[in-house]
Amino acid sequence: MRSGERSADALRPFSVEYGVQPHADGSVLIRMGNTHVLCGVTVEDRVPPFLKDKGQGWITAEYGMLPCATHSRGRREAVSGLSGRTHEIQRLIGRSLRMMVDLSLLGEHTLRVDCDVLNADGGTRCASITGGALAVKMALARMVERGRLPALPPLLPVAAISAGVVAGQPVLDLDYAEDSSAEVDANFVMSGDGRWIEVQSTAEGGPFHPQLFTAMAELAARGTGQLFGLWETRG
Amino acid sequence: MRSGERSADALRPFSVEYGVQPHADGSVLIRMGNTHVLCGVTVEDRVPPFLKDKGQGWITAEYGMLPCATHSRGRREAVSGLSGRTHEIQRLIGRSLRMMVDLSLLGEHTLRVDCDVLNADGGTRCASITGGALAVKMALARMVERGRLPALPPLLPVAAISAGVVAGQPVLDLDYAEDSSAEVDANFVMSGDGRWIEVQSTAEGGPFHPQLFTAMAELAARGTGQLFGLWETRG
Amino acid sequence: MRSGERSADALRPFSVEYGVQPHADGSVLIRMGNTHVLCGVTVEDRVPPFLKDKGQGWITAEYGMLPCATHSRGRREAVSGLSGRTHEIQRLIGRSLRMMVDLSLLGEHTLRVDCDVLNADGGTRCASITGGALAVKMALARMVERGRLPALPPLLPVAAISAGVVAGQPVLDLDYAEDSSAEVDANFVMSGDGRWIEVQSTAEGGPFHPQLFTAMAELAARGTGQLFGLWETRG
Amino acid sequence: MRSGERSADALRPFSVEYGVQPHADGSVLIRMGNTHVLCGVTVEDRVPPFLKDKGQGWITAEYGMLPCATHSRGRREAVSGLSGRTHEIQRLIGRSLRMMVDLSLLGEHTLRVDCDVLNADGGTRCASITGGALAVKMALARMVERGRLPALPPLLPVAAISAGVVAGQPVLDLDYAEDSSAEVDANFVMSGDGRWIEVQSTAEGGPFHPQLFTAMAELAARGTGQLFGLWETRG
Amino acid sequence: MRSGERSADALRPFSVEYGVQPHADGSVLIRMGNTHVLCGVTVEDRVPPFLKDKGQGWITAEYGMLPCATHSRGRREAVSGLSGRTHEIQRLIGRSLRMMVDLSLLGEHTLRVDCDVLNADGGTRCASITGGALAVKMALARMVERGRLPALPPLLPVAAISAGVVAGQPVLDLDYAEDSSAEVDANFVMSGDGRWIEVQSTAEGGPFHPQLFTAMAELAARGTGQLFGLWETRG
Amino acid sequence: MRSGERSADALRPFSVEYGVQPHADGSVLIRMGNTHVLCGVTVEDRVPPFLKDKGQGWITAEYGMLPCATHSRGRREAVSGLSGRTHEIQRLIGRSLRMMVDLSLLGEHTLRVDCDVLNADGGTRCASITGGALAVKMALARMVERGRLPALPPLLPVAAISAGVVAGQPVLDLDYAEDSSAEVDANFVMSGDGRWIEVQSTAEGGPFHPQLFTAMAELAARGTGQLFGLWETRG
Repeated sequence: MRSGERSADALRPFSVEYGVQPHADGSVLIRMGNTHVLCGVTVEDRVPPFLKDKGQGWITAEYGMLPCATHSRGRREAVSGLSGRTHEIQRLIGRSLRMMVDLSLLGEHTLRVDCDVLNADGGTRCASITGGALAVKMALARMVERGRLPALPPLLPVAAISAGVVAGQPVLDLDYAEDSSAEVDANFVMSGDGRWIEVQSTAEGGPFHPQLFTAMAELAARGTGQLFGLWETRG
Repeated sequence: MRSGERSADALRPFSVEYGVQPHADGSVLIRMGNTHVLCGVTVEDRVPPFLKDKGQGWITAEYGMLPCATHSRGRREAVSGLSGRTHEIQRLIGRSLRMMVDLSLLGEHTLRVDCDVLNADGGTRCASITGGALAVKMALARMVERGRLPALPPLLPVAAISAGVVAGQPVLDLDYAEDSSAEVDANFVMSGDGRWIEVQSTAEGGPFHPQLFTAMAELAARGTGQLFGLWETRG
Repeated sequence: MRSGERSADALRPFSVEYGVQPHADGSVLIRMGNTHVLCGVTVEDRVPPFLKDKGQGWITAEYGMLPCATHSRGRREAVSGLSGRTHEIQRLIGRSLRMMVDLSLLGEHTLRVDCDVLNADGGTRCASITGGALAVKMALARMVERGRLPALPPLLPVAAISAGVVAGQPVLDLDYAEDSSAEVDANFVMSGDGRWIEVQSTAEGGPFHPQLFTAMAELAARGTGQLFGLWETRG
Repeated sequence: MRSGERSADALRPFSVEYGVQPHADGSVLIRMGNTHVLCGVTVEDRVPPFLKDKGQGWITAEYGMLPCATHSRGRREAVSGLSGRTHEIQRLIGRSLRMMVDLSLLGEHTLRVDCDVLNADGGTRCASITGGALAVKMALARMVERGRLPALPPLLPVAAISAGVVAGQPVLDLDYAEDSSAEVDANFVMSGDGRWIEVQSTAEGGPFHPQLFTAMAELAARGTGQLFGLWETRG
Repeated sequence: MRSGERSADALRPFSVEYGVQPHADGSVLIRMGNTHVLCGVTVEDRVPPFLKDKGQGWITAEYGMLPCATHSRGRREAVSGLSGRTHEIQRLIGRSLRMMVDLSLLGEHTLRVDCDVLNADGGTRCASITGGALAVKMALARMVERGRLPALPPLLPVAAISAGVVAGQPVLDLDYAEDSSAEVDANFVMSGDGRWIEVQSTAEGGPFHPQLFTAMAELAARGTGQLFGLWETRG
Repeated sequence: MRSGERSADALRPFSVEYGVQPHADGSVLIRMGNTHVLCGVTVEDRVPPFLKDKGQGWITAEYGMLPCATHSRGRREAVSGLSGRTHEIQRLIGRSLRMMVDLSLLGEHTLRVDCDVLNADGGTRCASITGGALAVKMALARMVERGRLPALPPLLPVAAISAGVVAGQPVLDLDYAEDSSAEVDANFVMSGDGRWIEVQSTAEGGPFHPQLFTAMAELAARGTGQLFGLWETRG
């Protein structure tokens, strides 16, 4: 049995809180069990050099962890430099969130999404995507209110969830203890209409059979389905 | 009149919440008005090289700000490197907290205090010291519980508060708007018995008369007196 | 029609050349069309700190590109620092190659695999894995010859190939031009027995239907099947 | 008795030498006992970005120590990077020197003050401020000579001195040996008219009584009074 | 006797291969015995800031070594940063190649020469210069073809070779084993008309007599004379 | 005619001052005309890792320039990082000084020579070598006095001087103005018995005839001959 009596296909309790960072243009504190991520969005009136004068906007993400977020304290990346893991995660978050909206409808604005993990118990990159998408939605609404955008562009809901194989069984939304002992590890970023945005699956113990991947994908579709309920809430 | 109808010698509403980072050995979320700082303490079983084999412990601090904590987003120091301001602040926090306890009673342990600003509205370094001291107290209590220390050493309560001169008048506990227009800026770190641990005062508009310093020091003594009430709470 | 009259399920011409770096313990120059990667393996008589005294070995990878390997010259990472993309790729290569062999049979040795791209025309990370695996095989054989290992441990053949969706059609082993216009991008790392080691698939144009993923996976299984023919060659 | 038979309120012998760096716009070699600091000023025809088009100038400082300046050789910061201590000191020097003159009278010029310690025997930051102010004065005079400024703006003399508590007694202008054993440490930056620009005082052995601070401030006022005699000399 | 039965004044077998990096504007793989260097040239339509609007071009070089190029693996400079040796070598290559052509005939173009050592067996800096000069020649020819230059400017052939004193005897073109045991080490960069561009000679075992330098210079003149035969080949 | 009415073969006025950095084990302020370099030597009781347990010592150098030493202020390398030029120079100084003494007679000590340029007017690397050698001599004498060495080992005097070709004429000891307009530039490091330690000569305007090199070498031999007179002085 999983911790908290969860069944294999159950998410941990989850919630979002809007506006926790009043200086940000949009902010969401997302909790997936004991994983807590603060997602803040800043809207800038310029785009990166490679998009100059193309009449479109951009969405990008940065990811960090407070040193005490993890079981054993992590070195502050302001001292040690960005790790490979951080690079990998923030690139994934950025790519995923750019699928939310037609960038040509954003004007020459950059939405910079900061995802900072206050407490980590597995699944921080997925929580960052799910929470970050809601913070982007909030920031876009505020842009309209403040006249920085003429109208809210159509949004594609985006959410992400982990799945894995633990003790031979496919399970959804792994906590840290499960993640540490999983034979296969996967992350699924999906859109509200059930399509895929990014999938990644990694053998931990040894190569795995493609059917296990299919089973994990089915769990993830069910899990993101529930997370899209958060899109009914608003900041 | 000050924002929130505060009188010149009034603190902003303040509170602390313990245990917000369960992986830390001690953690406190301190709120001074809209300034919110998360202070987490990690106890390590070793000391820095310069203290090797001297039979004493060490307390040190690191300070950071989430990018969206400030009015305009700050660059992540994991990308830009530690600023001079950050160096200055974390050295001040470390020096101040080392006054709390006789380091020779800590065994060969390092208490590493992470102060991360979630929202900034003036006075973040002072809030970090006041909150960090409570988090150290909590961590020491836990060390005793877990047998890492034979007994709780005597603790000297430490707290810090800012003062300044705004429009010619000495005021206590400046928020960001006041801080930006202050003619003189000061920070006072004091002990529970009314003595001084560190004082710093800086002319912003032009040199100032020593009497203004005395007036600020009196406000600060009154302010820290109230903050020491937090030492009755416990994590 | 694809460049070089390739069908959708065809690999580009590929070949390997062994021993091109005589100072390395194993080296392979792999060519997949105009993508040329030099893979060199160095065997060290120690393991990273986290594996100290666990009686096992380690395999790790580093990845680089010569500045003139790409269409427009890339900045030398010795000057600009490792990019996020490089971090991401070398972590993938390392994870994949560690699946080749039971690390507890390697003794306390580290196999350090350097993958340097001499010319890039799409698929450099996959070529690095396929070529790197052969270079590891060569290095292990040399370790046995030189008495650094008592016997060759059982090896799981590993190879990788890209797939994608271009103009609505799933295709195998994309070159740079195809990769630049693909709607979906995927990389598959597979073992000689048809199982999966790592799969990654990313929407470029917009979310995609899961069936497209299945079609790409089938192409990839066929492609890696051909690449495993390289395991009959020897250095 | 203090070294060199000094009384508690006596400065060490001090002197300045002008023009030691002929390429600089102003330069002063200041000696306070065995503390020797070379202060060079460079005038640039631009201001930092945040002052662009505000019609004012800027004064900023950098601080360094030759490796052999100290008892045990210090690592060269060109190799190790700027320490927190260096950041803290150069920020203090810059803030202090900006009080010398109404920046709006400098035109769009930056005065960059380099303070390099040739020999260190305590009080290097104070010597840097006292000497740096004289070098700025010299550079401004040269700007007028060369037509880069229409007229010399009014200058507020600035000087700095340390004070401390050693063996229970307040003393002025500590040398390294005294500084190492002081119970309280303080630096005072003052203006020629007896007002304060920056004061900093730090407990070393334990919290201290406010009266000790007052005693140190009185010593410092007397000490800077003597240092202002240097303003009669000229480069 | 030298390895490979070489006489004291003999070069190792040498050859060049053009066009190995199709994305570069000019590329040459040069082999001097077991030293193999890939030289790629990129032509950029701009010049460094210090040459802005002077109506001339620039030639600059970067140098690197693949980690497995050397007897014991070298740390990747993308991780460790550029070494002093690399700085020294790439500055030498750049200075030498700038002598090939009147820079005012290049238009406002920068030729960036990347020299990457695939295998190192002594003499890599000299091989980089000799090969780099041929790659520059190839790139200039291509600039004319593509209309980026009106006509090929007159070129001064440039080549470089090492010499040394081994066991008391002056020898030409040292391999790694000879270089490691040489008493004197020298590099000569010469022009096709027998003049000198750069000479460097270093005592390894102890100071040396000037006649030994003369003997090495004569060997080098003979050696570069043979290398200039490569200028008859073409890319 | 040269500045200061110097003939082509004349050195600028030169002098040394010993003991200017009392904390160093040896220190020399050398002046060659308006080039002033402070050379400080620190003796450490350990050797670099590659010499561990070989029973010999080491001599190494670091080189720096104060920002105001040059005509236009140089960026502080503590901020910008070590330049290629600095790397090149400090490697040259270290190699040259290691020729002074049989390293196996130094015990397991490292002599670390810091050469910091206070004012630069051409020839700073040569002045660093000449002054550094005298500072090493002073430090070795002090090691004997303090019992860190049993006896003074035999010393080979080392000195360095620049030469060049200006307006077609070979000249000795170039100042900055000459250096900037020289057609050929050279540095000669020589030993007291007239042998060579390191020679470097670089074409600035175009390739040069070997006879010019010979003429420069003769000037340099005469120049270093005079500099060796400094070895009669003592610290």
